[in-house]
Amino acid sequence: MSVRRSSVQELLQSQELEREVVVKGWVRTRRGNKYVQFIAVNDGSGFNSIQVVADAEKFPEEKLKADGVENGAAVMVRGKLVASQGKGQSVEIQASEITVYGKADTETYPLQKKGHSLEFLREIAHLRPRTNTFGAVLRIRHAMAFAVHQFFNDRGFFYVHTPIVTGSDAEGAGQMFRVTTLPDQNPPLTEDKSGVDYKQDFFGKQTNLTVSGQLEGEVTAMALGKVYTFGPTFRAENSNTARHLAEFWMIEPEVAFNDLADNMDLAEDFLRYLVRYALEKCQDDLKFLNEQYDKELLNRLQFVVDNDFQRLNYTEAVEILKTAKQKFEFPVDWGTDLQSEHERYLVEKHFKKPVILTNYPKDIKAFYMKLNDDDKTVRAMDVLFPGIGEIIGGSEREESLEKLTKRMAEMNVPEHDLWWYLELRKYGTAPHAGFGLGFERLILFVTGMSNIRDVIPFPRFPKSAEF
Amino acid sequence: MSVRRSSVQELLQSQELEREVVVKGWVRTRRGNKYVQFIAVNDGSGFNSIQVVADAEKFPEEKLKADGVENGAAVMVRGKLVASQGKGQSVEIQASEITVYGKADTETYPLQKKGHSLEFLREIAHLRPRTNTFGAVLRIRHAMAFAVHQFFNDRGFFYVHTPIVTGSDAEGAGQMFRVTTLPDQNPPLTEDKSGVDYKQDFFGKQTNLTVSGQLEGEVTAMALGKVYTFGPTFRAENSNTARHLAEFWMIEPEVAFNDLADNMDLAEDFLRYLVRYALEKCQDDLKFLNEQYDKELLNRLQFVVDNDFQRLNYTEAVEILKTAKQKFEFPVDWGTDLQSEHERYLVEKHFKKPVILTNYPKDIKAFYMKLNDDDKTVRAMDVLFPGIGEIIGGSEREESLEKLTKRMAEMNVPEHDLWWYLELRKYGTAPHAGFGLGFERLILFVTGMSNIRDVIPFPRFPKSAEF
Repeated sequence: MSVRRSSVQELLQSQELEREVVVKGWVRTRRGNKYVQFIAVNDGSGFNSIQVVADAEKFPEEKLKADGVENGAAVMVRGKLVASQGKGQSVEIQASEITVYGKADTETYPLQKKGHSLEFLREIAHLRPRTNTFGAVLRIRHAMAFAVHQFFNDRGFFYVHTPIVTGSDAEGAGQMFRVTTLPDQNPPLTEDKSGVDYKQDFFGKQTNLTVSGQLEGEVTAMALGKVYTFGPTFRAENSNTARHLAEFWMIEPEVAFNDLADNMDLAEDFLRYLVRYALEKCQDDLKFLNEQYDKELLNRLQFVVDNDFQRLNYTEAVEILKTAKQKFEFPVDWGTDLQSEHERYLVEKHFKKPVILTNYPKDIKAFYMKLNDDDKTVRAMDVLFPGIGEIIGGSEREESLEKLTKRMAEMNVPEHDLWWYLELRKYGTAPHAGFGLGFERLILFVTGMSNIRDVIPFPRFPKSAEF
Repeated sequence: MSVRRSSVQELLQSQELEREVVVKGWVRTRRGNKYVQFIAVNDGSGFNSIQVVADAEKFPEEKLKADGVENGAAVMVRGKLVASQGKGQSVEIQASEITVYGKADTETYPLQKKGHSLEFLREIAHLRPRTNTFGAVLRIRHAMAFAVHQFFNDRGFFYVHTPIVTGSDAEGAGQMFRVTTLPDQNPPLTEDKSGVDYKQDFFGKQTNLTVSGQLEGEVTAMALGKVYTFGPTFRAENSNTARHLAEFWMIEPEVAFNDLADNMDLAEDFLRYLVRYALEKCQDDLKFLNEQYDKELLNRLQFVVDNDFQRLNYTEAVEILKTAKQKFEFPVDWGTDLQSEHERYLVEKHFKKPVILTNYPKDIKAFYMKLNDDDKTVRAMDVLFPGIGEIIGGSEREESLEKLTKRMAEMNVPEHDLWWYLELRKYGTAPHAGFGLGFERLILFVTGMSNIRDVIPFPRFPKSAEF
């Protein structure tokens, strides 16, 4: 008589009817009349709930109420899986047993049946995964993370864990979080009292949370050939916007012997693969988000799968923007960084497809990007997407020790902390290239959500580290 | 005439001979005579290098030397893939073109042909991935990470990213790293000058690096059903041992409606899957490590695959240990925590198979573990492995709000920071269980390496955060 528990998804897809099943999950709704009650049970395995039919003879409404079979309660249901008479589902469970593990008080449970604002749900991040919206977002987030690993593993890349606590600052910029175990008041000072004596700190030096795993990724690429990182990165910028998080996840592939063209091919293949994967594997969740939040979502995803990315130089892009009929808030001229409005114009209005911009002016890009022969531009690339602007930034890396140290001096990047990075150019240097994809940017694009705080389970931003 | 670059692994497995190929990698050795030179080229794609045959007529040794075709140099080789006459490889490349991208000065390059101590290699963590040993370890590390995702994805689990910066301490213990952007000297104080005013810190409260994602994992399990985390965790313990890192990666599955028996089944399936995956996918690398470091390695891995894990109570284990003929350094009695020597005795001497110990005394386990009816023990489980002792720790979680708050009070765990965790028990609580696997512990076991600093690319430990 012991029946193994099934997931709701298994049952909804099952062809094997008229058998006893056991399902465990949370009640989403209970409705009905004095003859029969319908209980929607969801266990998170997929978007859809299963309908449990409770006959009033065995389960009078008063008893269900008294037992707490209400929205939010955790229940075990035993019964027979049968074809459904009603519309909206092909199968349902005729209940023979309903056990409540834990009630959810109908007066105080924050997730009542009515819709909740995303702002309100952010304050109850411990409960919002139980909503349709966040269930969908988190399942898509999982699918995208898995697809990242699948894509790279299939192509012979090795996943490397680059350090989170670091003594160096990859971008030569970016505000960082300090990591310390020194006393928070009156820390030990250096002998000349000029500052805190970090030699006495846990790591024997000042350390911060990483802003990028790229430099360490390059280390491993110069040995294993094809690698990628996928880990948390941090920015201590006081940006209270819908586009910034203090803690976010980054994917950074790095490939020895790749040039800029290879790098563009990889980025394009990668993004297409991810979006196609979502369209194939997350249909129910995407359908809901498309209906609920953004009627253009599925079209936009299909657009990325269907269209080759347009590749062009920064210089050409600036020409297009300068002669555009559209008025921009920020003026464009050669040497300025492009704003979101410019990027979106190129993608959505001018080319009507994703764009890869290359060969940016060296002064607006990082020190490690390979200098072109013109001595003015570097082999950078940004991938621009509809609705979102820049989704990937990358480059071919400077492999010449001489040119690299010159750029570092020009940009005031101290050599001292990066002796090991320089040695990659000293011993067996080779062309290589890579890029970074902000995982939450990807999830924003794929889910159609508009606030980045809604695509990560526990967002971290100024004045907020709850949960 | 444009031939796409092949990886060394592709070529070594290729049946398609007598064709032109291009390979890019690093020279491992060059040897030969005045008629012919043999150059071993490795690109990290696998353990084995490919042999490049350079005929002296086209490539006199002096020219190769002058061009820098030496150990460590990055090269491109074009040539014909042919069956090899020599032993040790089935195919080789008859070179028609050899281009050096970057030399490695034979006088100063730290990785000369002679063997290096693991201690020395730790100081050049930016170059050690180029050695046989670390190439093998890092490829196995990748394979294990991928297998983790594959295992859970195949079984309907969702990967969740739990926060790295946190305001709460999951274990109610564990020394933590502080994360801050306040000035390192004279930080702002509270009005009564009693301490630092963390309201003015970036997150508006004191924050630390996480020691575990479990509590947030539970949040998502109580909505999505089956989840796992895989992320970095931190301990600020001043332990300079071969078993401790300040920064390490943890895998923490959590399953709604699972009890302790389900949890054991999951842990056993999971570990077996991982070890079997390594045996299948990492043969060349494991064979090398088995020969070089630990002649029992392959036997030990097979042992885990072949033997059902022995399950028994802590109380039974204590009885066995008390009557054991072996002398232990630490005495055993009911209520004490078991030491590595005890765990290894049970696994290696007594049962001769992996062991899962359950139902530990409540006083030596964390507050969130489910209390048994005896009021003395909790539904904890530790999985013990040969050579390594505890590899997994987990439990069924306390789902009763009343019992949980009582345990928290007894163990001085403040409720204030964990209001959200308690609400999981208030609204729709249900049995659930999970465990944690230290990823580096797993890699130690699978590679047979003996120092944990050698199974992570850039180890973090007291006084060391280089690279």
